Amino acid sequence: MPITLAIDCMGGDHGPSVTIPAAFQFLEEDTRARVILVGLPEIFDAGFQQAAAVFGDRVIVRTASEVVGMDEAPASAMRGKKDSSMRVSIDLVKAGEANAAVSAGNTGALMAISRFVLKTLPGIDRPAIATIIPSMKGQTYMLDLGANVDCSAEHLLQFAIMGSLLLEAVEHSASPSVGLLNIGEEDIKGNEVVKKAAELLRSSGLNFYGNVEGNDIFKGTTDVVVCDGFVGNVALKSAEGLAHMITTFLSEEFKRSWLTKLVALIAMPVLKRFKRRFDPGRYNGAALLGLRGVVVKSHGSASQLAYLWALRRAAEAARNDLVERISARMSGYTAASSESSPEGTAA
Amino acid sequence: MPITLAIDCMGGDHGPSVTIPAAFQFLEEDTRARVILVGLPEIFDAGFQQAAAVFGDRVIVRTASEVVGMDEAPASAMRGKKDSSMRVSIDLVKAGEANAAVSAGNTGALMAISRFVLKTLPGIDRPAIATIIPSMKGQTYMLDLGANVDCSAEHLLQFAIMGSLLLEAVEHSASPSVGLLNIGEEDIKGNEVVKKAAELLRSSGLNFYGNVEGNDIFKGTTDVVVCDGFVGNVALKSAEGLAHMITTFLSEEFKRSWLTKLVALIAMPVLKRFKRRFDPGRYNGAALLGLRGVVVKSHGSASQLAYLWALRRAAEAARNDLVERISARMSGYTAASSESSPEGTAA
Repeated sequence: MPITLAIDCMGGDHGPSVTIPAAFQFLEEDTRARVILVGLPEIFDAGFQQAAAVFGDRVIVRTASEVVGMDEAPASAMRGKKDSSMRVSIDLVKAGEANAAVSAGNTGALMAISRFVLKTLPGIDRPAIATIIPSMKGQTYMLDLGANVDCSAEHLLQFAIMGSLLLEAVEHSASPSVGLLNIGEEDIKGNEVVKKAAELLRSSGLNFYGNVEGNDIFKGTTDVVVCDGFVGNVALKSAEGLAHMITTFLSEEFKRSWLTKLVALIAMPVLKRFKRRFDPGRYNGAALLGLRGVVVKSHGSASQLAYLWALRRAAEAARNDLVERISARMSGYTAASSESSPEGTAA
Repeated sequence: MPITLAIDCMGGDHGPSVTIPAAFQFLEEDTRARVILVGLPEIFDAGFQQAAAVFGDRVIVRTASEVVGMDEAPASAMRGKKDSSMRVSIDLVKAGEANAAVSAGNTGALMAISRFVLKTLPGIDRPAIATIIPSMKGQTYMLDLGANVDCSAEHLLQFAIMGSLLLEAVEHSASPSVGLLNIGEEDIKGNEVVKKAAELLRSSGLNFYGNVEGNDIFKGTTDVVVCDGFVGNVALKSAEGLAHMITTFLSEEFKRSWLTKLVALIAMPVLKRFKRRFDPGRYNGAALLGLRGVVVKSHGSASQLAYLWALRRAAEAARNDLVERISARMSGYTAASSESSPEGTAA
């Protein structure tokens, strides 16, 4: 099926200077795909028209009159800016004109608008954000990294199901392994929510590995790591903080004298290879899961290549029926849970 | 006041081969201090006697007949091994024969035995473990890293008070700043417990900075970072996992060919300086806070120098009346809270 992506060209730190070239690059490699570029009228100038002409009707332009600010409160973006490039992009998914929307804009606003416009799938209480993290074995999908604090065991189960299906759809991995983030491997460890979530996961039919610890995220012990949004955010930001400290100190050591600067010059190819291996761009494209439509969030600071990764992931999720997979699986759960308990968690 | 440290010589991966030389080194630099070395009789052999003779009555030997295993369940260590080197060391603090105990043994067992033998201070519901983490500004004290999952806002307040007083006692910093680990700087962020803890902290009289995020631990935004034991454990283990991945990948890149091996050789002095700056040994010595006695936990894998740091920290905490400081401060809180609410949290 030819995929159509709605792209919020205004989102992110670099806006159209990154999003539009990335969109064109995406069209070059995904030769049947189409894009709907959404942005303020002025970005679609003569230079753009010329570059877009190559792709013919595979590029559609949709203008919007507003832009959601990177620091804008989600509620104000949702209620006050009904013609923002972000909102119009999501509306296109809702209307069935696009198979997925991609934005590098404000995460909170994107989640609020997506939830308001698209609604959650039956059986999903809260949408989650799944991020890809480099690991020693390749990559780990981790969720939730959204604003889901105070999660219940049922929410963690829903995250695990959605994360599993995301990997099946996007990475084509059969029966991905799921780890539950905890403070020890033993079953007796952890708080009450996590203990109960482990029970639910064991009888979920998912490929549940058991408890994992913080270091397992980077070890790559499981394909998916599930946690509440509070813990996920702290884990990821702590790791980012450490990475920043290490690179800063390393570069300080190399800049210490003319001799160490010379050493740095000699070591440059090795350091560059090392840096490439960790290139955050390769891991760009976080999926907003549990909605009635595919929405992918790019990092705000994404480069053209990084943004291209987000576009690829959105296309892959749409092409492989991510929403339908989650919907089908959840309706199984909803049916089972309403059978076993009439006043169960099913909506 | 001359300090006496009770040292569990058997604890840790290396046992007496690290703990005893470290104890002697400690006596050399802290010229009025004394140590009570606790261990199985066979470790105090002729070679030991000869080396110990230099210090005269500043070295006291106390034999124990059992050793707590590194993987032993805390309950079994506590109930089943009443003559373990760990238990005897804590008993010495309880009896007033030592001012502090240091062990590199099993953390869970050390906490359980310390809590059972020494008891918690009035106004402290749960003891906490405070660890020192290298930061871009020097170091950050973080607590809790114990097994306190499912903490209340009051527990977080108690951790903040204890962490502050630890810094005042050990680092001699006046009015250390305290950050509350959260998922955003704004007051509206976070779960209910953290929001309530922020309120308590604002009116606590502590130097409360406000919310901090995971990356602030390594940035060194505040002197103390407070969180529940679940979040603290995940944050620290995630960072450790990332550090391990980075060093592994970096060393792989340098080992790739004879040319990169040559580059590594040239870069070695720089890499070594960098490594020294992060030397975990410098940050060894986690304090068990909230007990009626000073107990310091060393990393199980600590080297002699790292173990020395734990001994120094224990001596500093005892010399500067850590327990009395926490006790005095908490009795103020206990009095205030029973005044304002007769059925308040005060015990």
